[in-house]
Amino acid sequence: MLHKDSYKQHISAQFNAELESVKNHLLEMGGLVEQQIGKAVESLLSRDSGLAEEVIAGDEQVNELEINIDEECSRILARRQPAASDLRLVLAISKVTTDLERIGDEASKIARQAVKSVEEGGSSAGSSFVEIRHIGNHVSDMLRRSLDAFARLDVDMAVQTVIADREVDSEYASAMRSLVTFMMEDPRTIGPVLGQMWSLRSLERVGDHASNIAEHVIYLVRGLDVRHVEPDDLVAQVEEHP
Amino acid sequence: MLHKDSYKQHISAQFNAELESVKNHLLEMGGLVEQQIGKAVESLLSRDSGLAEEVIAGDEQVNELEINIDEECSRILARRQPAASDLRLVLAISKVTTDLERIGDEASKIARQAVKSVEEGGSSAGSSFVEIRHIGNHVSDMLRRSLDAFARLDVDMAVQTVIADREVDSEYASAMRSLVTFMMEDPRTIGPVLGQMWSLRSLERVGDHASNIAEHVIYLVRGLDVRHVEPDDLVAQVEEHP
Repeated sequence: MLHKDSYKQHISAQFNAELESVKNHLLEMGGLVEQQIGKAVESLLSRDSGLAEEVIAGDEQVNELEINIDEECSRILARRQPAASDLRLVLAISKVTTDLERIGDEASKIARQAVKSVEEGGSSAGSSFVEIRHIGNHVSDMLRRSLDAFARLDVDMAVQTVIADREVDSEYASAMRSLVTFMMEDPRTIGPVLGQMWSLRSLERVGDHASNIAEHVIYLVRGLDVRHVEPDDLVAQVEEHP
Repeated sequence: MLHKDSYKQHISAQFNAELESVKNHLLEMGGLVEQQIGKAVESLLSRDSGLAEEVIAGDEQVNELEINIDEECSRILARRQPAASDLRLVLAISKVTTDLERIGDEASKIARQAVKSVEEGGSSAGSSFVEIRHIGNHVSDMLRRSLDAFARLDVDMAVQTVIADREVDSEYASAMRSLVTFMMEDPRTIGPVLGQMWSLRSLERVGDHASNIAEHVIYLVRGLDVRHVEPDDLVAQVEEHP
C-alpha cells in the first residue's frame, strides 16, 4: 500500500507541476502582450518606426506562446483527465490564451498605424494623443489587473476589471466624438485622424479582452459564467455565489 | 463478459450521442449567427430599424448558446475524459463557439450602426453600399463554408476558406480607400461614411473569425495547428500532414 500511495503522490506532484507550468506560461504570455501594447502606444505617440517594427516582429513570439499553451492544455487533458477546479483551470487557460493572442494582434495593428503615420510624415493633427495615452494607460492597467487576478485567483480584482471596462468604453466614445468634430472642421486632417481612430478602436478592444480575461477568473474561482451579465448585476451575482 | 461488454457499448453509445449533441448545438449556433449577419447587413442597406432591433435582441440567444455549449464541453471533459480525436473535437468546439459569439457581436454592431443611420436620417452618401453588400456576401459565404467544413470534417473546404480571407482583406482595403477619398472630397459626408467604415470593419472581422473556424477544422482533422501559417504555405503544410 505504501508503494502505491507514494506512486500516487508522485503522479499528483507531477500533475500539479504541469498545471503550475502552463499557468506560468500563460502569465509569461500575458507579460509579453502587456509589453507589446505599451510599446505599440509609445511607438505611435513618439513616431518611432523602429519601436513599431519591434512590436510587429514580436507578435510571432506571442503566437508561438499561444500554440504552446494550447498544446500543453491538450496534453494535460489527455493524460491527466483533470476534474473540478483543475479542469476549470485548464479550460480557463485555453480561453484566456485566445484573448491574449488577440490583444497581441491589436498591438501589431497599432504599431502598423505608427509605421504608416511616420511614412506619411503626418503631424499630430487631431491631437488625440492625450486620449490615446490616457486610454492606453487605462487598458494596460486593466490587462495587468486581469492577469494579477488570474495569478492570485482574486475575484474582487476581476470584478473591478470588468467594471473598469465601462469607463474605457465611455472614454473611447468621447474621444471618437471629438475626433469626428476635428475632421469636420479641418478635412485636411482626415487621413491622420482616421489612423488615430483605428488605434483608439484597437485599444478599446484590448479593454474588452482584458474584461474577458477577468470574467474567466470569476468562472475559474466561482464556477460562475458571467460573460453576458450586465456590469450592474455583476457584483450581486458574484456575491450570491461565494 | 457479455454483460460488461454490453455495458461498455452502452457507455460508448451515450458518449457518442453527447459528442453529436454538442456538435449539433455548435452548428445550430453557427446557423443563427449566419442569419444574424445576413439580417444586420440587410437592415443597414435597406435602412430597416425594425430588422436591426431584431438582430440586437437576437444576440442574447447567441450568448446563451455559447454558455450552454461551453457547459456541455466541460461536462463531457469531466465525465468522459475523451482522448485523441474526441478530445480534439471538444477543444475545437470550445474555441469555435468563442469565434461564433464574436461574429454575433459584430452583427450587433452593424445593426446598431443601422439604427443610428436611420435616426440621423442619413443618405446613402459614400455609396459604399455595393461594397458592403459584396463583402457581406463574401464573409457570409466564408462563414457558411467554414461551418460546412466543420460538419463534414472537410479539410479542403477549410483550406479554401482560410485562403478566401485574403480576398476579403484586399476588398476591404480597397473599399476603405475609396471611402477616405469620398470623405475628403465632400466633408459633409464624414458622419455617415464613418458609419459605413465601422460596418465594413465589422465584416472584415467576421471574415477573420470564419477563417479561425476553418483553422480549427484543420486542427481537428489533421491535428495540425495552422493558426499562424501564411496562406501561401498553408496548402503545402496541410499536404504534408495527411
